[in-house]
Amino acid sequence: MKICKGGICAPKGFLAGGIGSGIKNKGLDLALIYSRLPATTAALFTKNKIKASPNIVTMERLSKNRRASAILINSGNANCLTGKKGLSDARKLTSVAAKLLGINKNYMLCASTGIIGKRLPLHKIEKALPSLVKKLSAEGSEYASRAIMTTDNIRKELSLNFDTDGCNIKIGAIAKGAGMISPHLATMLCFISTDANISYPALKRALKEATEETFNRITVDGQMSTNDMVVAQANALAGNSTITYGTSGFKKFKTALGFVLKHLAKLIVKDGEGATKLIEITVKNALNYNDACDIARNIANSPLVKTAIYGEDPNFGRILSAAGASPGFFTLGKLKLYIQGLLIFREGSACNLSMLKGRLAKEEVYITLDLGIGKASYSLWTTDLTEKYIRINSAYTS
Amino acid sequence: MKICKGGICAPKGFLAGGIGSGIKNKGLDLALIYSRLPATTAALFTKNKIKASPNIVTMERLSKNRRASAILINSGNANCLTGKKGLSDARKLTSVAAKLLGINKNYMLCASTGIIGKRLPLHKIEKALPSLVKKLSAEGSEYASRAIMTTDNIRKELSLNFDTDGCNIKIGAIAKGAGMISPHLATMLCFISTDANISYPALKRALKEATEETFNRITVDGQMSTNDMVVAQANALAGNSTITYGTSGFKKFKTALGFVLKHLAKLIVKDGEGATKLIEITVKNALNYNDACDIARNIANSPLVKTAIYGEDPNFGRILSAAGASPGFFTLGKLKLYIQGLLIFREGSACNLSMLKGRLAKEEVYITLDLGIGKASYSLWTTDLTEKYIRINSAYTS
Repeated sequence: MKICKGGICAPKGFLAGGIGSGIKNKGLDLALIYSRLPATTAALFTKNKIKASPNIVTMERLSKNRRASAILINSGNANCLTGKKGLSDARKLTSVAAKLLGINKNYMLCASTGIIGKRLPLHKIEKALPSLVKKLSAEGSEYASRAIMTTDNIRKELSLNFDTDGCNIKIGAIAKGAGMISPHLATMLCFISTDANISYPALKRALKEATEETFNRITVDGQMSTNDMVVAQANALAGNSTITYGTSGFKKFKTALGFVLKHLAKLIVKDGEGATKLIEITVKNALNYNDACDIARNIANSPLVKTAIYGEDPNFGRILSAAGASPGFFTLGKLKLYIQGLLIFREGSACNLSMLKGRLAKEEVYITLDLGIGKASYSLWTTDLTEKYIRINSAYTS
Repeated sequence: MKICKGGICAPKGFLAGGIGSGIKNKGLDLALIYSRLPATTAALFTKNKIKASPNIVTMERLSKNRRASAILINSGNANCLTGKKGLSDARKLTSVAAKLLGINKNYMLCASTGIIGKRLPLHKIEKALPSLVKKLSAEGSEYASRAIMTTDNIRKELSLNFDTDGCNIKIGAIAKGAGMISPHLATMLCFISTDANISYPALKRALKEATEETFNRITVDGQMSTNDMVVAQANALAGNSTITYGTSGFKKFKTALGFVLKHLAKLIVKDGEGATKLIEITVKNALNYNDACDIARNIANSPLVKTAIYGEDPNFGRILSAAGASPGFFTLGKLKLYIQGLLIFREGSACNLSMLKGRLAKEEVYITLDLGIGKASYSLWTTDLTEKYIRINSAYTS
């Protein structure tokens, strides 16, 4: 498995582009990803009961076809809570784009991110679509990945290749996300291309499993979005024989996909709104998986833990208090807490606190809670909570 | 029912005092509440699996006696996660105080609030206890209520009286709380005195029901504390015949108690760390109580909703997105959203947004979500989220 250049366009037959259509006051805001051949396509969506229009349109189309040729994505406007008009806006724009690309509109997907509750500026986008289609190129991943950014500071892109079945297979991906990031779902926008020949069930399974261990393991602010979407397109141009579930080819593909998604998931957390630290939280030796997960998430979403880490303050009491407030079971006497690898709490009392303070000045903070009562474990990544998060989010629409 | 002076000392036979013992660098930090007669005493405690030492000691004593004469309270140190030594510290200090008061140590309760994970400065406190006992007076409520403050800016105290059974009954209370405030429990510290003659079951029931509708309806940061405690002492000096559950006297008592606790609960939210707004969230016409409660709490604990309100930003999408992420059921088409009494969203689309902006400049913000599918409702109070919350909590121990 080797990292390579090209991003979403690295796999054979994929083109991409990005353009400024005027949805935002400045910068790129409209992206297009295109596969020369219709690609087997699997996707995961937000579990929020309020779903944005592009999510509904994309879900409808994939439920019929399981194949897609292209995805139109805009930033600056989520096209969410916009009623029937929002749905017809999404259908209209994908129809226009499909016509320009010469493909069936049912093979055209869409995604949006940005402010909730405002209609898309339909005419501006329609006007920009012909230039966007002309800009499609094998070097377009950078523009597409820029065009899907909102409050993101870091561009999120990766591509790699590996050999299987005598063929070289490439996987490329771009993602966006910095706020309204929470687990329990396919988090935020991520688009994945591959030239692998892979069956739909195998692609869906690989995407679901890799997402569970990457995007579903991050949280910036515990806020589940209405627009989250992860889409993987496989156009089979690598020429390998079909990868099916459970084979060694599937394992290689899933490992490579997991590597790409983990890289992007960690970038999303690092780029969390106002974040200065990446925090990895591990709960181990829990009675069961759900307990480990509940406790880890309660710690990760605690504003008191997050502000303490921002202040580089060895306030271990907030970590244990957040654990104690979760539904997960533990007994205090058996619990061990490690921060930055240092044992901080065992047998009901603190230790080594004086040695900890300096170690918190690092950009990555590792918290491990060993419950000592079972064998289940769970890890996730989060950020600290800073004044900048408040500033970004208290003046978002105005 | 009339408000009266005296705070926790308003009811007959109650004395209080507060002193600076040196737990904090400056200011009062040690309080004592004393009833001349042992009082029937009911209490509610945090549901956090990690419980502070004073909570454990107070629970043990009340489970045996259901009566108490006095409560020793300190701020500046939570005496939590301090192991067996923390427990013996709490036992030692209550024994010393009981001896000075000439009461059985089993009638002496205790409570603490402040930093987690550090041992109490035992000698400083022991040295201060004789002066504290000497300071006990019927005018001591102000000092006691000051001595239990940590990050609080507002002093929280109320007393009132009402007539029943030909007798005048008084209820007094003091409380503290500004951060680590979350519902699902008897929130933070609150001490209630009354000279009513009331049976233990009736007192416990009144306290539980009144707490459910007041302290359990507030949240500052969704963080359940390890030290929460609400204690009600009734010394029967008003001379009324015993109030028992379900009588008209019980209803009067519960109404009066509910009035006191609601006043203090709203003061705690107004004094929430860094808060600039009091937000009242009501979910009505839900299918059932749990749905209404889940949705209201998800909105109340959303950092994106809280920062938008801080920015006086009519970002209704964040409110609906937080509702959609909760487990509570609703259908978007039937939902109506009102902000400051103005209809903002109905039949799947927004309306009146331009009229809203100016109305958000007020200090109190009212959000009502009418689900239109059932008859259950739930209300709670919360605060906005500001840079000041981050500043207060990123440098708490250092």
